[in-house]
Amino acid sequence: MSKPGTDTRHDVEGLQDLFAGRIVTNKSKLLHFTTDESFHEGPLPDALFQPRSTAEVVEIVKVCEAEKIPLIPYGAGTSLEGHTLASHGGIILDMTGLSEIIEVNAEDQDCRCQPGVTRERLNSYLRDTGLCFPIDPGADATIGGMVATSASGTNAVRYGTMKENVLALEAVLADGSVIRTGRRARKTAAGLDLTHLLIGSEGTLGVVTEVTLRLHGIPECTKALSCSFASTAQAIDAVIVIIQLAIPVAKIEFLDEKQVNACNQYCGVKEVEEPTLLIEFHGNETETHDQISRTTEIVEELGGRNFRWAESQQERNELWRYRYNALPAAKGLRPGCEVLITDVCVPISRLCECIVKCQKQIEAHDMLAPIVGHVGDGNFHAFIVVDTKDKKEMKKTGEVAEWMTSLAIEMNGTATGEHGIGIGKQEALIHEFGISTVKAMCRIKAAMDPHDILNPGKIYSPEIMSAYRG
Amino acid sequence: MSKPGTDTRHDVEGLQDLFAGRIVTNKSKLLHFTTDESFHEGPLPDALFQPRSTAEVVEIVKVCEAEKIPLIPYGAGTSLEGHTLASHGGIILDMTGLSEIIEVNAEDQDCRCQPGVTRERLNSYLRDTGLCFPIDPGADATIGGMVATSASGTNAVRYGTMKENVLALEAVLADGSVIRTGRRARKTAAGLDLTHLLIGSEGTLGVVTEVTLRLHGIPECTKALSCSFASTAQAIDAVIVIIQLAIPVAKIEFLDEKQVNACNQYCGVKEVEEPTLLIEFHGNETETHDQISRTTEIVEELGGRNFRWAESQQERNELWRYRYNALPAAKGLRPGCEVLITDVCVPISRLCECIVKCQKQIEAHDMLAPIVGHVGDGNFHAFIVVDTKDKKEMKKTGEVAEWMTSLAIEMNGTATGEHGIGIGKQEALIHEFGISTVKAMCRIKAAMDPHDILNPGKIYSPEIMSAYRG
Repeated sequence: MSKPGTDTRHDVEGLQDLFAGRIVTNKSKLLHFTTDESFHEGPLPDALFQPRSTAEVVEIVKVCEAEKIPLIPYGAGTSLEGHTLASHGGIILDMTGLSEIIEVNAEDQDCRCQPGVTRERLNSYLRDTGLCFPIDPGADATIGGMVATSASGTNAVRYGTMKENVLALEAVLADGSVIRTGRRARKTAAGLDLTHLLIGSEGTLGVVTEVTLRLHGIPECTKALSCSFASTAQAIDAVIVIIQLAIPVAKIEFLDEKQVNACNQYCGVKEVEEPTLLIEFHGNETETHDQISRTTEIVEELGGRNFRWAESQQERNELWRYRYNALPAAKGLRPGCEVLITDVCVPISRLCECIVKCQKQIEAHDMLAPIVGHVGDGNFHAFIVVDTKDKKEMKKTGEVAEWMTSLAIEMNGTATGEHGIGIGKQEALIHEFGISTVKAMCRIKAAMDPHDILNPGKIYSPEIMSAYRG
Repeated sequence: MSKPGTDTRHDVEGLQDLFAGRIVTNKSKLLHFTTDESFHEGPLPDALFQPRSTAEVVEIVKVCEAEKIPLIPYGAGTSLEGHTLASHGGIILDMTGLSEIIEVNAEDQDCRCQPGVTRERLNSYLRDTGLCFPIDPGADATIGGMVATSASGTNAVRYGTMKENVLALEAVLADGSVIRTGRRARKTAAGLDLTHLLIGSEGTLGVVTEVTLRLHGIPECTKALSCSFASTAQAIDAVIVIIQLAIPVAKIEFLDEKQVNACNQYCGVKEVEEPTLLIEFHGNETETHDQISRTTEIVEELGGRNFRWAESQQERNELWRYRYNALPAAKGLRPGCEVLITDVCVPISRLCECIVKCQKQIEAHDMLAPIVGHVGDGNFHAFIVVDTKDKKEMKKTGEVAEWMTSLAIEMNGTATGEHGIGIGKQEALIHEFGISTVKAMCRIKAAMDPHDILNPGKIYSPEIMSAYRG
């Protein structure tokens, strides 16, 4: 966020002629963009513009580069670290107008689409081909937004993150040039890997205008299991063994007893309030049967109990509704409050210790913070429920969140497994990588966007950026 | 390669004091570095230096940056596109002195090692832990070299390439700063993805001094199958179905009839000289049994015949010896000649058409060029056997190789699936990506290495680099 009193205004009226009056400056419409799904807040943007083609993206980028007006690419607005706020003013570039699914190559299991396509619409469109795009961050995010934040979620343990599932990108750079970072081959060793450089770059290096995605077959057979344990240690031990034996589970999610309690209240059910794993199996009949028998043996041996199986689509929907409502369920524990979501990810050998230490810290500070995790990857979230109007509580919450981040980094983990840096984790970035590495990032940013017009103020603070741009 | 007559000499004598006389300038020792495993040749380097620590790498980088002396990181010298030649003179930085395996985290299935460790030594070291590093480019390359070229090879169809198996890197940048691009978490969304930016950057952005690798369990059960087909089309159709059904085969390699003939001569065996697939299965008993029964059904239905199974280690070694000797077998067809190796990779729906068109082109030009392929990824190599002393033949060979590359790019594929650009495919890079994208690469290179001391002349020609460095 810009400092109080910083002037973030830019004159955008000159752009109206170029885009036939489509530059929206109506204050009531712009207010929507001063908050996001998290508790972050930003200044009022100068304008909103929805491009209809890559050519229009080029045009607006060129004029903004010339006039030094910030551009903030915007998808479904579901990011959690203030990525889409107009920290330095400028124009919100609403990419949802670019929402064409351009081609599906079923034989090669890939597709090309525009960034404004949401993952649920893509999957509906794909259904008849027998293929799917399994990356599932929970929210119905746009594909462009998922590229920007390197999204992952529940299915990453089997299918990987966006990093493993984007074959190529088209993007408009700050100078208005259009780059294509790859083609449709399944692998390449040609030149610098700009595809991965753009994934997770949070709109700071280029505006993504087309995405080539890797697709997967819809599994012949899907089954899901819920079971509980007497302790977090038992549950996580089971996860570690399952991962070590390379059982290709599609999802393996953890809910601590506080989260089970919250979900019980929210969903009106009465699951046993113990640390719980929800596991999903994908494959053909033989494969799922083998995965299930091996997993069940491990889970039983480690004290898993209260098994509940979900086979039909309806049963599975019910089981996963429980998990997917974890965030509103946490919020529901204390109406009128917001949730600060942590996102650490650690080597799985340290996962149990990390979760337990976080739970103790939460308790010691008398906070309300249920925990859920994509534990197959070592990634978990504490949903810290906080009264954002209570300054003292906000301060304490920030401190505990920072403490958790430091703990994860100390354990050789990362501050953010899947949400990104945005404006919320800029200090953590430096802590995690050290200043030399962040300096290298700033130099690349400066080389690709010398006037800092592409989502400025994200990933790096203005102070860091100006000190290290080289 | 530098232009004839270009002066590539640098004064390196001043460095002797700093490194206690360890800068090797003995011409007979330097001659070794004027050629590589391919037919590429380069000028004599100015010197050879083997650093013993990251600190020594920092020291030599700093002095070379100050004196503008090129540095060429060197591993096992097994690259195929002239990556390790001293195109602009300078110092060969022999990284094999940094060959420590620092730690193996068996529970997390990862390890940290120095870049000079070779993959075979790493796998010997890992054996007792039940883990392995499966990326196998054929040659016993160093891990650092494999990072530099984004190596892959036979197992990539199941385990991915270096891009999917490097968790983090430590590297020394041109300014002497040491960066760490990640930690040991299985995923991260923190900041720019410098790990992937360095993988495949061919030593042009930084000198890799430490690698954190993802490991995999040694499969409980391994079986391999060889079978032949009446036509290339039948063999590739079988591959396409196997990949579409997501049968997790560990290897699926193709040899055309010419290559089978060459291997028969070289290995002194008499396999049927038809297009052949070699397939390997990894898993537990149930998994491999399921994979084998599904694969066999597909292969039989598509006309596969002459099945030969390999179960014991010895049988498998024998089966794979056939494939791993493909290159010397091709060379053996015409003693005294060299081999120009193409490396295209296309979407698998276009693979058969691509291979058949290449075979026809080879035939039309009366050339000797057996074909082998990592066909599960759509990647194949034509081993064009050529008399490098015959200028006319060399010219024709170059033209046919370029024709193949253009064909692959036209089919939405890449000029290089796994060998990289080096000095051999610089024109193809521009053809594949277009000038805007290559310009963006040059800008990043210039931002990270402003005096172009890190492996200059690779990936981009000096002309392209000076035109587009920004």
